Amino acid sequence: MKEYYIGRFRTDDEIQDFFLVKSIAIKIGSNKKQYLDLMLGDSTGEIAAKKWDVADTELPSLNEIQDGDVIKIKANVTEWNGMRQLRVLKLRKAVATDDIDLMDFIKSAPEKAEDMYAFIYNKAAGMGDEDLRKLCIRILEDNKEKLMYYPAAAKNHHAELAGLLYHIKRMLMTAERICQVYTNLNGDLVMTGVIIHDIEKLNEIEADVLGMASGYSFEGQMLGHLVQGIKVIDRLTEELKIDKEKAIMLEHMILSHHYEPDFGSPKKPLFPEAEILHYLDMIDARMYDMQEALDATEPGGFSDRVWTLDNRKLYKPKN
Amino acid sequence: MKEYYIGRFRTDDEIQDFFLVKSIAIKIGSNKKQYLDLMLGDSTGEIAAKKWDVADTELPSLNEIQDGDVIKIKANVTEWNGMRQLRVLKLRKAVATDDIDLMDFIKSAPEKAEDMYAFIYNKAAGMGDEDLRKLCIRILEDNKEKLMYYPAAAKNHHAELAGLLYHIKRMLMTAERICQVYTNLNGDLVMTGVIIHDIEKLNEIEADVLGMASGYSFEGQMLGHLVQGIKVIDRLTEELKIDKEKAIMLEHMILSHHYEPDFGSPKKPLFPEAEILHYLDMIDARMYDMQEALDATEPGGFSDRVWTLDNRKLYKPKN
Amino acid sequence: MKEYYIGRFRTDDEIQDFFLVKSIAIKIGSNKKQYLDLMLGDSTGEIAAKKWDVADTELPSLNEIQDGDVIKIKANVTEWNGMRQLRVLKLRKAVATDDIDLMDFIKSAPEKAEDMYAFIYNKAAGMGDEDLRKLCIRILEDNKEKLMYYPAAAKNHHAELAGLLYHIKRMLMTAERICQVYTNLNGDLVMTGVIIHDIEKLNEIEADVLGMASGYSFEGQMLGHLVQGIKVIDRLTEELKIDKEKAIMLEHMILSHHYEPDFGSPKKPLFPEAEILHYLDMIDARMYDMQEALDATEPGGFSDRVWTLDNRKLYKPKN
Amino acid sequence: MKEYYIGRFRTDDEIQDFFLVKSIAIKIGSNKKQYLDLMLGDSTGEIAAKKWDVADTELPSLNEIQDGDVIKIKANVTEWNGMRQLRVLKLRKAVATDDIDLMDFIKSAPEKAEDMYAFIYNKAAGMGDEDLRKLCIRILEDNKEKLMYYPAAAKNHHAELAGLLYHIKRMLMTAERICQVYTNLNGDLVMTGVIIHDIEKLNEIEADVLGMASGYSFEGQMLGHLVQGIKVIDRLTEELKIDKEKAIMLEHMILSHHYEPDFGSPKKPLFPEAEILHYLDMIDARMYDMQEALDATEPGGFSDRVWTLDNRKLYKPKN
Amino acid sequence: MKEYYIGRFRTDDEIQDFFLVKSIAIKIGSNKKQYLDLMLGDSTGEIAAKKWDVADTELPSLNEIQDGDVIKIKANVTEWNGMRQLRVLKLRKAVATDDIDLMDFIKSAPEKAEDMYAFIYNKAAGMGDEDLRKLCIRILEDNKEKLMYYPAAAKNHHAELAGLLYHIKRMLMTAERICQVYTNLNGDLVMTGVIIHDIEKLNEIEADVLGMASGYSFEGQMLGHLVQGIKVIDRLTEELKIDKEKAIMLEHMILSHHYEPDFGSPKKPLFPEAEILHYLDMIDARMYDMQEALDATEPGGFSDRVWTLDNRKLYKPKN
Amino acid sequence: MKEYYIGRFRTDDEIQDFFLVKSIAIKIGSNKKQYLDLMLGDSTGEIAAKKWDVADTELPSLNEIQDGDVIKIKANVTEWNGMRQLRVLKLRKAVATDDIDLMDFIKSAPEKAEDMYAFIYNKAAGMGDEDLRKLCIRILEDNKEKLMYYPAAAKNHHAELAGLLYHIKRMLMTAERICQVYTNLNGDLVMTGVIIHDIEKLNEIEADVLGMASGYSFEGQMLGHLVQGIKVIDRLTEELKIDKEKAIMLEHMILSHHYEPDFGSPKKPLFPEAEILHYLDMIDARMYDMQEALDATEPGGFSDRVWTLDNRKLYKPKN
Repeated sequence: MKEYYIGRFRTDDEIQDFFLVKSIAIKIGSNKKQYLDLMLGDSTGEIAAKKWDVADTELPSLNEIQDGDVIKIKANVTEWNGMRQLRVLKLRKAVATDDIDLMDFIKSAPEKAEDMYAFIYNKAAGMGDEDLRKLCIRILEDNKEKLMYYPAAAKNHHAELAGLLYHIKRMLMTAERICQVYTNLNGDLVMTGVIIHDIEKLNEIEADVLGMASGYSFEGQMLGHLVQGIKVIDRLTEELKIDKEKAIMLEHMILSHHYEPDFGSPKKPLFPEAEILHYLDMIDARMYDMQEALDATEPGGFSDRVWTLDNRKLYKPKN
Repeated sequence: MKEYYIGRFRTDDEIQDFFLVKSIAIKIGSNKKQYLDLMLGDSTGEIAAKKWDVADTELPSLNEIQDGDVIKIKANVTEWNGMRQLRVLKLRKAVATDDIDLMDFIKSAPEKAEDMYAFIYNKAAGMGDEDLRKLCIRILEDNKEKLMYYPAAAKNHHAELAGLLYHIKRMLMTAERICQVYTNLNGDLVMTGVIIHDIEKLNEIEADVLGMASGYSFEGQMLGHLVQGIKVIDRLTEELKIDKEKAIMLEHMILSHHYEPDFGSPKKPLFPEAEILHYLDMIDARMYDMQEALDATEPGGFSDRVWTLDNRKLYKPKN
Repeated sequence: MKEYYIGRFRTDDEIQDFFLVKSIAIKIGSNKKQYLDLMLGDSTGEIAAKKWDVADTELPSLNEIQDGDVIKIKANVTEWNGMRQLRVLKLRKAVATDDIDLMDFIKSAPEKAEDMYAFIYNKAAGMGDEDLRKLCIRILEDNKEKLMYYPAAAKNHHAELAGLLYHIKRMLMTAERICQVYTNLNGDLVMTGVIIHDIEKLNEIEADVLGMASGYSFEGQMLGHLVQGIKVIDRLTEELKIDKEKAIMLEHMILSHHYEPDFGSPKKPLFPEAEILHYLDMIDARMYDMQEALDATEPGGFSDRVWTLDNRKLYKPKN
Repeated sequence: MKEYYIGRFRTDDEIQDFFLVKSIAIKIGSNKKQYLDLMLGDSTGEIAAKKWDVADTELPSLNEIQDGDVIKIKANVTEWNGMRQLRVLKLRKAVATDDIDLMDFIKSAPEKAEDMYAFIYNKAAGMGDEDLRKLCIRILEDNKEKLMYYPAAAKNHHAELAGLLYHIKRMLMTAERICQVYTNLNGDLVMTGVIIHDIEKLNEIEADVLGMASGYSFEGQMLGHLVQGIKVIDRLTEELKIDKEKAIMLEHMILSHHYEPDFGSPKKPLFPEAEILHYLDMIDARMYDMQEALDATEPGGFSDRVWTLDNRKLYKPKN
Repeated sequence: MKEYYIGRFRTDDEIQDFFLVKSIAIKIGSNKKQYLDLMLGDSTGEIAAKKWDVADTELPSLNEIQDGDVIKIKANVTEWNGMRQLRVLKLRKAVATDDIDLMDFIKSAPEKAEDMYAFIYNKAAGMGDEDLRKLCIRILEDNKEKLMYYPAAAKNHHAELAGLLYHIKRMLMTAERICQVYTNLNGDLVMTGVIIHDIEKLNEIEADVLGMASGYSFEGQMLGHLVQGIKVIDRLTEELKIDKEKAIMLEHMILSHHYEPDFGSPKKPLFPEAEILHYLDMIDARMYDMQEALDATEPGGFSDRVWTLDNRKLYKPKN
Repeated sequence: MKEYYIGRFRTDDEIQDFFLVKSIAIKIGSNKKQYLDLMLGDSTGEIAAKKWDVADTELPSLNEIQDGDVIKIKANVTEWNGMRQLRVLKLRKAVATDDIDLMDFIKSAPEKAEDMYAFIYNKAAGMGDEDLRKLCIRILEDNKEKLMYYPAAAKNHHAELAGLLYHIKRMLMTAERICQVYTNLNGDLVMTGVIIHDIEKLNEIEADVLGMASGYSFEGQMLGHLVQGIKVIDRLTEELKIDKEKAIMLEHMILSHHYEPDFGSPKKPLFPEAEILHYLDMIDARMYDMQEALDATEPGGFSDRVWTLDNRKLYKPKN
């Protein structure tokens, strides 16, 4: 079982544990000697690592290590130029008999997929509108397998194991509360919008069971998850004999939830539930990205530029 | 049978014939007397008309005339401020026994709907690609009734009886010829794109059998004819068991044919046939609008500003 | 006491009551006779009204009626062209002895100003952060008088009596709930942002005690309520000896809450509480504008174009 | 005579032939040994090549090889990371006595310059409009020498030997055909526009007789080929005593053919022939760029991002 | 000789003098009586005027008065709704024997055309660079006649008699002074740029000898004064055997002086003298427009929205 | 005392002098040998320098040299690839006993800070408007210390020792002269605007006493120098009891001087003095950047792309 996590390293620690190889290369230093240059990761973050003075005899075994492998290392935590770094003393590739839990090595939503799925399913099952209830339950059940691990994006916000479920769950939590303030909203319609708005990311993005995206599908590139989602709702609402007006309103909610033509929505929201869906989506994405950038920032300092936030550098207060 | 057409009036003509009422109102002149202010139309254009000095006793019968009615008038063609105008001497509403052909009064494509439909149908029937052939024929047959009269737009280019057919036909003519130059293009794919690209305008726009649009449908406003068209292709290609790659390429052609997000296309064309479809569409629309603006312009002069052409004032050469 | 309200009129009602004159003019009809053309209002809406066949002898008294006056009328509710209209039988200007409550005639927030103020004040008084608590209380107390009636805008959203208070109150309600979901947010900071973000609209807009704006102040036009607000916080935080970092963060929240340079914010939000403030503001404004547009729309139909919503026509579902 | 062409290499071929050096460098590998890193080209494409384990004694002769030289190599075709690559066994610089045809090494339009020139000349000579005919012939004759080799661009579409001629020729072919559909167009005017629209690229771009551009001329940077072209037409039409209206229309066609201010056209097309000129230009450029990107793409796959096509990744169908 | 000027009217004045008719119409008042509605102007401004209770017998003579005529009136200066207005008691059309100086009625630059021309001519004659000196003198002499009265614009800044001369003169004055501060500038080049930059407005705009523009010429609409100016410089520099580099730099100065593609410049300034020319032009235009708007504004108040200044409302300080 | 300046080097010079180290690194050449790669600078420019064949024994002393150090070198001026370069023969770090004047090594405004300060102070002291005079003097005195060395920007125009003073001084010189042409301008107001417009760059940018910026302050990033400047004027005008209208006009001048929302100004200038302030600022920045780019350009050639000038490549004429 993994004991040392990157997010908790302190300078001068001596650590011995398994890590995921994010990148690996042999390089030549200014002293003309070979060294091994690594980027290692686990579920809590990433860290650079060096193994100095690599002998030619070590090359064959090192050449067998590739990105994505898990290796076991013994190393010291040092500090260079204000950043922590590992000086690797020993390393070997993990083997079948090592006791490794892949979950220790990948970025993942902070809650269990099963719990999040159950939360969402219960909200769907509790809807008063029968049409919307059966549609949501059908979609959740049809897509349960992929939902358990799919990220919400190829990169950027919620690009993590079960990130899409986490995105839906937090949006649902906010949706419920906003409907308490703006009581004219049809709560079931808002919640259905939340559940279906990104569902075809499951078929737009190509991702493995670790929640890591490798790219976009053919249909995803040709049509995108908004149009793919509309096609799904079009067929399902016909099959489930859902009221036509409601079906088209749901399709419109999917179509308009990116709000701006330049972000993929050719129509702007034409009723309040479609409007609020957009803001629920934005708030969850922005809070996620900001939180992530600030987690890596010292109090009283500014973060690096965040690409998904128009290159803003965020501030973290002192106290 | 109609004898006098607005497009051929000359000043000082004395005419007696039927015209369509585009607008009608009683107004008071600077001489404090009532007069009747009309805008009359037929298939060749529109003209302003005045009947001076209307007596109170005429009001009841005049009040029965409404926009869209056909009236018979006797009038002189005068000229005022550089524009032709009618001075109406007598008028009455048309009655059931009058020999009236509605086609004489409405703007219409310059070719017969039956001929254009046959031209398009033959192009579809002549395709070598069986999937595309059966899809096109199905769509043409399913929509034949509305195609016979639908305009291609609520206003602007091809807003006329059977304007959509005319738009498709001319695009097909150019498509064939461009495929002779750019021989790498898949001609059947281009022609299928032409036939289906605007087909759901039939369900986006609400129009009567005279080809006059009254507005947009509920689904048209919520989704638009691009997304509506994709839904149709999605269902039809499944029903006709058309190859999935081809189906998605066709949906992409519909989705991307407006080219810019601001004009409704969230994706840009990703293969040459989709790219050329956009240009075929643009060329036909622009040639139509320019021709129409120049028809009303004197040689050696500039047209009025044309809204659909970014407010350009077009030039008509002298000779 | 007022008995008949415009928002509850039904065709063929006979009504007799006081209304506010929004506009008044003598016009000449197509029958060459004078008539009185009125737009009347009360707290529930507006309605057109006509008094036909006005005699010359009536003119002196009618000429005394001006926009903003209250008049008493006897009238029938008729319907013309799909719109309700009043046929006025008798009218007179209100006099001092009439029992008139001005509140019956003006658009107003749906809650009592005192209650909303108390709600907001209590939230401020309950803050755990002493700096923010004393700042909020000071600002609320300094501005209490104007807050009781000021609209939140010269036109558009919350342009109504005590509209600014209502805007702040609903934002506070949502702020509290969103902080339950995004638990990393500093709730006191968010709520302070809500309370101060628009406070200098009180000095940017010029409005009377009925909440009706007449224009913008000199300083409002030169600097705008964002910069004016920063100046107020700059002086107050110095006077109250509030921590400098906190003071600048609050000024930044005001400066960035319009989000885009084109809407007046030269800086984008640089921490999550500033980011969420923007969305709280947007949501409340949009929900207000949409609700108002849909109140005037029939089920199953589209509203008129709404200028503040990019000219969208909103849809109101059938059921 | 050249026997082996890059575009037809298959893995494991053993080849011996001449190639053009696109880039050359000595590098040190991860094994600390020197190797030669080359990019080689011929008229059919480019390929990477490596010569491993270069001895210090080889350096003097290798240092004499520069970009643009032709070398003879003996090599094996290998495959690395999904890309073909050459392992070079022997190489030497070409010498005067080698039988080398430069045409084998450079990218070139797919038709002979003489044939394309003759095609264009014949179209000009066949014009019915005497003014336009003599103008086109004069321009073709004045510029014949440079036309034989000039590319149509410094980079991007038609950046190849005689690329400008090829661009003009294909546009003329489409122009003729579009005039058959849109019969109101003045065909001679459209064709003249095609012939002259880019003619001053000959003086804007600086290129050698192999059609390779090295940059832009002084006048090209100061004015650009649109304004330069207008100056040429201004002087020539005066010299040839061409009708003033026609001259200005031609200058306008040049000025407006980029269509948008941001692409260099301060005026938009003001008559149909100018409008169609723009679309002819766009279609030819887009078909060229798309074809080129897809030539290098596997069926069923997406191309790399194409900078000239707004970074789209194009799709090539499976069959 | 004219005695009463609109810009100096005070309420309750009784005036008797000649004015230019800007618009004239017979209207019917709310009292059902005819009145004459006039807009009158002179060199100092415009004012509305009414002649009440026009008898039918007056109509024939009134109908002879048209826009652009000069009339003599007797009238009182009244005030209505915060604006001054004339109540006309008597009026007649001016006749040949009236002692009328047209200059009293039209807007004109504040200095004499002859003086401004002499000022500019002297600056040109004093240039040390022989090429630029002879070019400027030639252009000034070639265009002297039109320069004496041409406005600098069809509307907006310097749309007045000899407005172009005034624009050039003030730009020259500033140019000289700025060259004292930025001593690296080639003063003769800057001044030549000033003299030629707008010279082809003389052939782009169509204006009469009173400096009133009636529209744009054919060439002006097709090419615009920037391209027209380049053509002139191209021919003149050849004729005068002016150094080619200098000629192209001058053409570039004309081409780039609007700075942005959207304002007609496809190239941005590429040397400091071209850059400064743009700012000289902007400053003079802006100072003119602002001054004009503020002339009509009360101290301590805001002007109407000024279209040429992005609809800003300018402020005039109290003192 | 420094004798050799980079800006005056000629190929084949042998030089021996002190230079500032801009960057330093040990690298391995293609001959597998270590060399020292330097970028050296002084007040006249920068130059690359190499010391070949560095022995391991030299490394300890070389490792002690850091960016920002001054070193003494003996070297030859060579030329490589069209650029001058130094071949370093000997080098050592400067020591306390070396006779070094830091001013020889840093980029600096071309005039003495004391003289520029005195010039500006005298202009302020000479103002006729007492309010503005005392405000300017107070601001100059309060900020004198930092003004003596602060740059006007972190990078780009006037990023040099006392660059802000130089920027203000040249703007004042032009301001005076422009007020001679546009005599309606309030000269004292314009000059006050010049003096205060960028004053809070002193607290937005963090710079050392050599005028080198290291970044932006917390308040600078949160608010920016425009809003910071308004806060300063707000407090100072209250303290100095300056007329309220004047104070707000000055704050508006600061707020609007960047002109466009995208450049940080939420309001556009609303009176001529604010408008002219913007142009004075633009002209001085542009003339500075252009001059600097052209100083490094050969006559008859184009500069490198200049980022601050929209990537233009500037032209320097031949003579």
